[in-house]
This record gives sequence, structure tokens and C-alpha cells, in this order.
Amino acid sequence: MTARYDLGNREGLPKYQYLHRCIRSDIRNGVLAAGSRLPAKRSLAAELEVSVSTIEHAYSLLVSEGYLEANPGSGFVVCPGKAEGTAFFDLGDVSIPEHTLHGKLLDFKANRCSLELFPLDAWSRLMRQVLSERDPAMLETVPFNGLYELRKAIAFHLYESKGIRVSPSRIIVGAGTEYLYGKLLQLLGDQRIIAIEDPGYKKFADVSRSYRTYWDYIPLDKQGLSVEALMKSRADVVHVSPANHFPTGVIMSSGRRRELLSWLSGKPDRYIIEDDYDSEIRYGGRAPAPLVTQDETQRVIYLNTFSKTLVPSLRIAYMVLPEALMDLYRNQLSFYSCTVSSFEQSTLAKFISEGYFERHINRLRRHYKHQRQLVLDALGQSKLALISEVFGGEVGTHFILKIATNCSDKEVKRLAAEKGVSLDMLSDYCVHPSAKSSHCVVVNFASIPTDHISVAIDLLEIIFQREILAHQHD
Amino acid sequence: MTARYDLGNREGLPKYQYLHRCIRSDIRNGVLAAGSRLPAKRSLAAELEVSVSTIEHAYSLLVSEGYLEANPGSGFVVCPGKAEGTAFFDLGDVSIPEHTLHGKLLDFKANRCSLELFPLDAWSRLMRQVLSERDPAMLETVPFNGLYELRKAIAFHLYESKGIRVSPSRIIVGAGTEYLYGKLLQLLGDQRIIAIEDPGYKKFADVSRSYRTYWDYIPLDKQGLSVEALMKSRADVVHVSPANHFPTGVIMSSGRRRELLSWLSGKPDRYIIEDDYDSEIRYGGRAPAPLVTQDETQRVIYLNTFSKTLVPSLRIAYMVLPEALMDLYRNQLSFYSCTVSSFEQSTLAKFISEGYFERHINRLRRHYKHQRQLVLDALGQSKLALISEVFGGEVGTHFILKIATNCSDKEVKRLAAEKGVSLDMLSDYCVHPSAKSSHCVVVNFASIPTDHISVAIDLLEIIFQREILAHQHD
Repeated sequence: MTARYDLGNREGLPKYQYLHRCIRSDIRNGVLAAGSRLPAKRSLAAELEVSVSTIEHAYSLLVSEGYLEANPGSGFVVCPGKAEGTAFFDLGDVSIPEHTLHGKLLDFKANRCSLELFPLDAWSRLMRQVLSERDPAMLETVPFNGLYELRKAIAFHLYESKGIRVSPSRIIVGAGTEYLYGKLLQLLGDQRIIAIEDPGYKKFADVSRSYRTYWDYIPLDKQGLSVEALMKSRADVVHVSPANHFPTGVIMSSGRRRELLSWLSGKPDRYIIEDDYDSEIRYGGRAPAPLVTQDETQRVIYLNTFSKTLVPSLRIAYMVLPEALMDLYRNQLSFYSCTVSSFEQSTLAKFISEGYFERHINRLRRHYKHQRQLVLDALGQSKLALISEVFGGEVGTHFILKIATNCSDKEVKRLAAEKGVSLDMLSDYCVHPSAKSSHCVVVNFASIPTDHISVAIDLLEIIFQREILAHQHD
Repeated sequence: MTARYDLGNREGLPKYQYLHRCIRSDIRNGVLAAGSRLPAKRSLAAELEVSVSTIEHAYSLLVSEGYLEANPGSGFVVCPGKAEGTAFFDLGDVSIPEHTLHGKLLDFKANRCSLELFPLDAWSRLMRQVLSERDPAMLETVPFNGLYELRKAIAFHLYESKGIRVSPSRIIVGAGTEYLYGKLLQLLGDQRIIAIEDPGYKKFADVSRSYRTYWDYIPLDKQGLSVEALMKSRADVVHVSPANHFPTGVIMSSGRRRELLSWLSGKPDRYIIEDDYDSEIRYGGRAPAPLVTQDETQRVIYLNTFSKTLVPSLRIAYMVLPEALMDLYRNQLSFYSCTVSSFEQSTLAKFISEGYFERHINRLRRHYKHQRQLVLDALGQSKLALISEVFGGEVGTHFILKIATNCSDKEVKRLAAEKGVSLDMLSDYCVHPSAKSSHCVVVNFASIPTDHISVAIDLLEIIFQREILAHQHD
């Protein structure tokens, strides 16, 4: 355990404070599991060559914060519950004020900005209103597919913002995309094979596995998912994000969309699951019409979520089913109660129908656009510009930074980790990594606080200093 | 459609009002589907032998309430969304002030009282507090098994109120029992056969089917689930509600509990799912210790929900997994995000840890106890006492009223429906109905507003007037 705690490398922090931070990080990310016992103070002091009081000081800080428990007899034990939630979200020993940087420095998953931008005031006011109205409907069992008011508001939003015409009765509200995707797998039946993009959002494979549904991985190119590969596969259902592929940022070309729709009509029982998870965050140009609006076969299933536009912890997503599938759902799965609280459904319905949602999206868009520009400018002005190229980033909050390096992605990650930086690489999202998917850093610019952009770029420069030097010497 | 609208039987209501109510009821319970066209005013007027203005009046009321839409050319069409949610919850043409009686007269599912008793003020205040604290943790991704604060509060509650000792790290919070039960089925794997009580809560079979998991039905007797039948079955996992079987109200005897636990230890890979859904609502005596507290094999899974003690539409339930299963869950299913909103988890955590929950349960208990007594007294004083017997009702909000009748349950339900009353019969919950399960009305006394108890009893007397008369003539 203590091999990591290199007190020589503590960047000016007092020893006890550095040690406190190291141990806390190990607890948070699960290296030290709940219930495990820490070394006795004396032996750790001897091992690290520090005074016992340094250890004492660090341990007692951790006790006061609830990370450790002092058990008479058995010493200091890790408390339960402290690892979870912060696991995989730790910067380790980078000397950046830690209250501002909990997550990976360049981490797609942490939606830092949306946290600060969440319209808590409006939300609180509407929630208060919902609660004070004491509408009996709020306490009665919600329809299986969600409160009518919310579905109506979503239908209105879909029409206004994306030109999707849909009756509220075809919308199903659920606790997150994963939940709805699971219900879809149950609905489509166990004889299906799902096509999943590679690289892509790995959770769809995880969910499919947990529902014992088979899947094939389908590669993509600059135009989006390879329909050629899809046709060669066994799949009869395909999950795609044409508006913004994760994590490459590829927007499906109109030619490819046509190809995909003609694949759909090629056989009678094929389906497309169109996952439109962050298409609202678009910085310019006209958004291509969602596939669902061009679907003449009535076999495109449209999925979207409020995780990216509001906050992930609300757990509200929805899907739009074609009429026939909706009938099937009603027959087979409507015994499942709606998984979203009626209070929050009603609050969200008001939030959308009273115009807050649209204003909020506009605000998000402006904020992220500015943020993206700052990061791109800083990159352009840094020496990284010599050895890198940016792909994607027209929609959503991430782009790809392709680095000219000979280092393997594994090696790059190791080097970064040495500097205390967790890098997400495109190959992390690939099941079958290729030369094309190598050397690509996935940058979630929403996760970098504005005042830490230059630190982040500096760290990247340090990580790739060999490449920069080599380039300068060429 | 109009065959039902017997204007001769409108119990003093003006014709237009009676008609308005009939049509609305048909829309609500789905007899008139969204999009279907109503008869032209003239033809309906002719058919019912009323004036056109009566029809006009009824239709325009329905338009103003959003049930109908007047489409130029195509007449009056049923609006979408009005059927859902209220389906199966309609009293039809019983002349009871309808704003107080939306549900079935004697319906287990409608938790009417809990609606009125829901502590909206305290809940609103705590929710406001949570929202105004702007705790970043509220907006970050919640741990897969729920907010630590909530799990800690639940662990404390389980220990204080039921003597269940459990670490918060073994608790998983999810959006309702059905959701958690589904996750359990995924966790236990597809080679399992689940034992489900017959009669019992039908949804468990529905959920099992949707997860393609096989199940066997196991009968029960007065001591609870038949362990003898369980041993003869193929099942290696059993779902039971020993604290209060639904809908019979049987409390599992201590002997049967011992038998069941010894079945559990009979083979190494057996599990009990102990569903403790409404055990908090107990009117007297000492509650038997939950099975999970006597589980030496670490193979009892404990499930509970806040649907019965707070309100169903909140969608918050939890399960306690044995250590080994929790490890398995962490490995295989923790990629699933927690399905409950962080705001509501935090509000509930405060609600429990600040003592509101305990006080609320005490209040519920007093209220339901009083309500139960009123219903039992009214029954005892009515002529129904001559031909009926009460079973169950020591826990929860329902009991069984066994009627001495020769009518089949189907016939009884038809007779009741003629009076506009939807009766729940025990046989409705049986897959294999027996003589024992016949002639038993499931009475959810929580669903009868206090000032309608006598009306409800009167209606039951009318339904069973033949039996009462026969008894009096004997």
C-alpha cells in the first residue's frame, strides 16, 4: 500500500497533509476497501521515515472526515460508503486546489459545467409549486409511461426543437437511458442481435449482456456507422447516435443516413435505436433532421435524456416508440410502474412548458461554446499544436485530440498517471482498437474549470514533452 | 357503447350530468380509446330519447375538461392521455360524490389514505432545504447503490425498528420493488427457478416472465407458504412476504419460518427473497423478527419499499444483499446508474434521520387502525355479519371478507359491477383457485374514505342481499 506514498514528490504540501490526501484518494477510488485496516501508526511512520505524529495527524483528519474509524484494539479501519461514487474520480496528487477538481482532468463522464449551470433556483421554485399544489394526481400511481403533462411537454419540445411530430401516447418516460434500453431489449425479444458501434458507449454492451441479448460490434468511419459492415453482420437492430457519435464526435453524413434507412426497409423486422443524447448542445450550422423524422417504415425508436441538458442525477430519460411497438409495450410491459417520481415529472413538465428548458439549453450552449473556444485557443497557442489535431466537437462537450506520437496508448496513460492525470483515450472505448483509433485523447472540455485550462494544457505538454521536443528538433 | 347509458338509473342526477359522467368514465377506463369518435349529437339524442341540447351540454362539459376535442367535420373525438392512469380506477355510475371516490370501492391498489396522509409540508420543507443547500454531491453522479446518506439512514431505521443489523454498503436503493426484483433476477442468473406464492402479488410473475426466468407457484396455508410444496418444486429461490402475505394477510408462523430457513440451508445455492413491503403498518402484538435476522447462511435477500409508508409515486425501494451477492452485484451490475433522483434520495435521508419518518409511520398506524376498526364495526353491525367472516388485517391495509355464498366469484363480480362496484376477489390473485380461495372479497380499508364506509357496506349488503335473505329465512 505505501509504495505509492512518495513523500519526496509532494510538491510543497506538508507531509501530514500529503499523506492524508494520498490515503483519502486510495479510499475514494477503492484501493483501500471499506473495512480494511490501515497500518499501525508506528510501523507506517517507520516505513515512510516520518514522525509518528505526522501519521497521527493524517489519520485523525481522516477520522474527522468520516473516512476512517478508530476501533479500540484493531486500530484504524476504512469506513463503508466512502469509496463509492468517487471511485475513478480522483486526480491523485496533482497540486491543483482540490475542491475545484474532483474528476479526471480530461474526463468525458464528469459533467462539471452542467453541475454549476443547473438552474437550481427555477427548479426549486417549480418543485415548491408542485408540492404546494397538493394535486392528488401527484400522489396517485403514475401511468406506466409517465405523467401525461410531462409527455405532452416533451412532445411539444420535440416538435419545436427538432421537427419530430409525435403524440404523447407514444412517449415512455423512464429512470435513465440504461433503464429504457433494458426495457427495449425485453420488448424486442431474445432472438435479436443488436448492432453496437465500436468505438462507442460501452454501457450498451453491458446492458445487453445483463439481459442475455447478443450483440455485434460495427465499426465506423468519418461518415458514421459503416452500413456495409452492418449489412454483413447478423444484427437486426442497430443502436446509433447520428447527431454526435460518442466519443469520436462524428456526425453521420446524409448519404450514410440514407444508406441506414434503406438497410432498415431492407427487411421487415429491423429496427434503429436513435440515441440523441446530447444533440441539443450544438454550436453552429443546421442540425441534420433526426432519422426518426425520415422514417417511413415506422421502425425508428428515438431515445433521449435530460442527463446532458439538466443533470445526470435527476435520472429522467424518454423514448418514442413507433405505434406498433407501443401497442406491444402496452400489452407486454405496461405492468411495470413508471420509474420516475411524479413530483419530479411534474416539475420537469412545468420547466419545459414554461420555457425554462429552452432558455437553459441556450445558456448551456453559449457557455459550452465559450468553454470549447478557450480550450481550443489554449491548445492552439501551446506547443501541443505542433503535434496534435482536433476532431469533432461541433456538438456536445467532447472532442478528440489526435497526437503525433509513437507511444502506445497504454504508455501514454502510464506517463499521464505519473503526473497524476487520468487520460481517456479513444482506444479505451474500442473493442477492436485499430491504428486509426490510437493516439487519440478524448477531451471533455466541460469538465475543465475555466481557470484550470492553462494548467490542464501545461500538464498535457509535460506528458507529451518528448514528442514536442522531437518535433522542434526535426 | 350507449347500451350502458341507462338514463332511467341515474339516481337523481340531471340527464346531461349523468351522461357526462358515463362518457368520462368510459374514456378514463379505456372503453372509449383516444382518437375514437363519439356518436353524432343528433343520433345519440335519438337513441337515448333525450333532447339534442342534453347531449350538447354533456359533450361541451367534456370538451372543457379536455376529454373530448371538437373537430370540424369529424365531430367529437376522444383526446389522448385521458384514459391512462385512471384506467381500471372508476366507480362508474355509483352515486357517491365522485371527487372523493376515484378508485374501486374495495381496491387493494389504491392507497387513498396514504395520499391524504402524505406529509407534504415536511417533505416540501426538506426538499427546499436540499435544493437550497446546492450541495455539488446532489448534482454529481450518484453511487450505483444510492446516496450514502440515504443508505445510512435506512440502515439506522432497519436496526431501530426491526433489529436488522446491516452496513449501508449492503443496501441498494432503486426505483421501486419491481425494478430491484428485476436486477435480482439478472444477478441470480438465468438457470434459476423462482418460487412465487399462489395466491400472491402477480407482478412478480410478470417481472420474471419479462426477464425470461422460470418460476413455480407454491400454495400456502394458514401458517404461510407451504415449505413441503416448496421442497417438491424445482425452485431454488423463493419470494415470500412472511410479515404479511398479500392478499390473504397470513403472517408466517414461527414453525414455518424455521422450516423455511432449514430449506434454505438444505442446499448451498438457495436464496430467500423476503419482501417486507408493508410490515411497518402493524396494529398490535410483537412483530416476528424478519427472516433476515435469523439467517445464518447469509442467503436471505431483504426487500422493502417506501410506497406503502410514504407514497407509491415517489418510486423509492431498497434491498439488502448478503455480502457475497453484494460483491457479485458490484462486479456485474454496478455499471447501472442508481435509478432514483439524488434530490429525492437526499430529502428522504433527512426525512428518516430527522425523525419524521418514524412519526409519520406512527401516525399512519393510528389512522389505519382507526379506519380498520370503523370498517370492522360497520361490518359487524351490518347484516353482512350473518354471512361473512374476516381474516387477516393485523398488518397492512387489507383483510379478507369470506362470504357464505353459492355464487361463483365471477358471478359475484358481475353482480357487483351491475351496482357499479369493482370487487377484488382473492381468486383474482390465484393462478390455481381452490374452494378455499373462493368467496373471499379482498377489502382494502385504506381506500374507503371514512364518510363513505356506510355507503360501501350498504352496497356490499345489496350485492349479497340474496345470501342475507336466505340466511334470515333459514
